[in-house]
Amino acid sequence: MQHSEFNLRLPAWLIQQLDKPLPELALDQQKMAWIIELARHNITHGGGPFAAAVFERSTGQLVSVGVNLVIPTTCSVMHAEIVALIMAQQATGNYLLNSNIERSYELFSTTEPCAMCMGAIPWAGISRLLCGARDEDARKIGFDEGDKPENWVAKYAARNISVVRDLCRPAATEVLEQYAQQQGTVY
Amino acid sequence: MQHSEFNLRLPAWLIQQLDKPLPELALDQQKMAWIIELARHNITHGGGPFAAAVFERSTGQLVSVGVNLVIPTTCSVMHAEIVALIMAQQATGNYLLNSNIERSYELFSTTEPCAMCMGAIPWAGISRLLCGARDEDARKIGFDEGDKPENWVAKYAARNISVVRDLCRPAATEVLEQYAQQQGTVY
Repeated sequence: MQHSEFNLRLPAWLIQQLDKPLPELALDQQKMAWIIELARHNITHGGGPFAAAVFERSTGQLVSVGVNLVIPTTCSVMHAEIVALIMAQQATGNYLLNSNIERSYELFSTTEPCAMCMGAIPWAGISRLLCGARDEDARKIGFDEGDKPENWVAKYAARNISVVRDLCRPAATEVLEQYAQQQGTVY
Repeated sequence: MQHSEFNLRLPAWLIQQLDKPLPELALDQQKMAWIIELARHNITHGGGPFAAAVFERSTGQLVSVGVNLVIPTTCSVMHAEIVALIMAQQATGNYLLNSNIERSYELFSTTEPCAMCMGAIPWAGISRLLCGARDEDARKIGFDEGDKPENWVAKYAARNISVVRDLCRPAATEVLEQYAQQQGTVY
């Protein structure tokens, strides 16, 4: 008898955060600063030092949030970006977010996506990716970012996905370093 | 209020298949032929033309099965390989399958992995990947395989992941062509 079910649930602390009034999130920097704080909270609750969120671009509305849940869910797929994409698709009822041409979606991630997440983002219909820390910042504390094409940003451009790097990079990197100092599990 | 839950469940028809006695699955070819038939069944139940399975290498025991569930789950992440990896990790209770050095795991996939699945396989602790159809067979019917490094098989070798290609390729390709003839949704 094989396993046939998997239930993904955002952690209770994160649901509580989302039930409170959100801070001002008009600017890219404000959005990134907010998810960096979610990444910091996630560490103290047994998760990895990564968070992500999907916003609708024209309205700036928050669509979904994800944090790294690899350890809590016993699942290596549950990176912050993947969790945010899954929840965005459930929220909108569409596996291709940009299938409604009147809406477009952007993904904020506290660290550049690993090879898996880089592959997942185009399938979800994201048109803009904003990253905090760089690959090398994650590698510095021992995380493996996987085998991405060297020119993945150009490959994204060819798919009409724009990439913004180094948004609040020092603050994003600080969370990675905090995790390393606490000797968090690296995978 | 953001979405906070996602429940993944193998389809009822697949659970029924798994409850029956399995066919003889000693050889690589037998394992691949079996999942190709699961991919064929999946089409008739609203899924994509892809299936995958994880086996423990020393015993040959089936650990988990996955089929493409992008449309049924409204989630672009739910490729056959990802579903099989998630279920294997739930079955073994470990997000890194090879963390017990006495056991190693192989993933059979009816088509070469897309960029997302290529990135996901090393994170799950798979040490051998066996593929049926090639990238170009999937592309021929309109599926996008994403931006993988051109030398991804060599990159896998550097991670001690061996790759077997073209296992039952004609039968695997036939399922893709059957899907195309039925004008199945391509994503």
